[in-house]
Amino acid sequence: MSDYAYFEDFVVGLKRETAPVTVSAEEIIDFARQFDPQPMHTDAQAAKAITGGLIASGWHTASLTMRMLITGGHYNPAPGTLGLGFENLRWLKPVRPGDSLRLRLEVISVRASRSRPDQGIITNRFITLNQHDAPVQEMTSSAIVPRRHPLGQSS
Amino acid sequence: MSDYAYFEDFVVGLKRETAPVTVSAEEIIDFARQFDPQPMHTDAQAAKAITGGLIASGWHTASLTMRMLITGGHYNPAPGTLGLGFENLRWLKPVRPGDSLRLRLEVISVRASRSRPDQGIITNRFITLNQHDAPVQEMTSSAIVPRRHPLGQSS
Repeated sequence: MSDYAYFEDFVVGLKRETAPVTVSAEEIIDFARQFDPQPMHTDAQAAKAITGGLIASGWHTASLTMRMLITGGHYNPAPGTLGLGFENLRWLKPVRPGDSLRLRLEVISVRASRSRPDQGIITNRFITLNQHDAPVQEMTSSAIVPRRHPLGQSS
Repeated sequence: MSDYAYFEDFVVGLKRETAPVTVSAEEIIDFARQFDPQPMHTDAQAAKAITGGLIASGWHTASLTMRMLITGGHYNPAPGTLGLGFENLRWLKPVRPGDSLRLRLEVISVRASRSRPDQGIITNRFITLNQHDAPVQEMTSSAIVPRRHPLGQSS
């Protein structure tokens, strides 16, 4: 028996949450200088007039979300799992210095493959929450996931 | 007259390309250690067996794409422009050390607002290309964009 997550391990409504990560002003500025050089992300003084203070690049929040997915204790895809991309990426609230984010994963769809008895398709909603339990980012992602026990096979 | 991009400046089929950015092994590893610590992104030796060598995190490619959007010479949104998020984010080919990426923006939809004579909705396809003109990432994004001349107003 392995700890890998197979198709059979996912049911609609299953929710998991990761440990939090806290983001600092220095990290916000460092990321934005490299990838999103706009004053509300790079210049605390200028940001006051634009967004009431420094806010993180949405792509920084997305990248931190990936980090939480990988390191947050719920990511152990079975060999052969294949992500199909991301949909409906939305930034819902600003992320500010000192905010503590965590990732909530919710299984919203589980479909057997029509053509492949050895796999299915899982869709997860990724909700990135702040320390006030407010969603700051949402997206959905589907993946092809192998079955532990292919349909029609006797074990 | 301003250089801001208003609704009237977008037509379906309009294509723009940014200057390229080159990504190094050090940058790939540095990003991945922070945001996507998986061996194909962080460990050149281990990556040989997994992906034929180091490949960039998809979120690194997405973040570099944002950088090219902002700094690539085509980003001057009119005040009041509001991005509505991203759809269909797909990573199509690996990005490897030394690859030189550029962003191609294509206007794929231009819609007048039904309720607001002073704005419309633009949808752009974002295609991130490598030095061989192969797409490595695609996504689409819609934005509410103000009109330079609101409908029904005499100038």
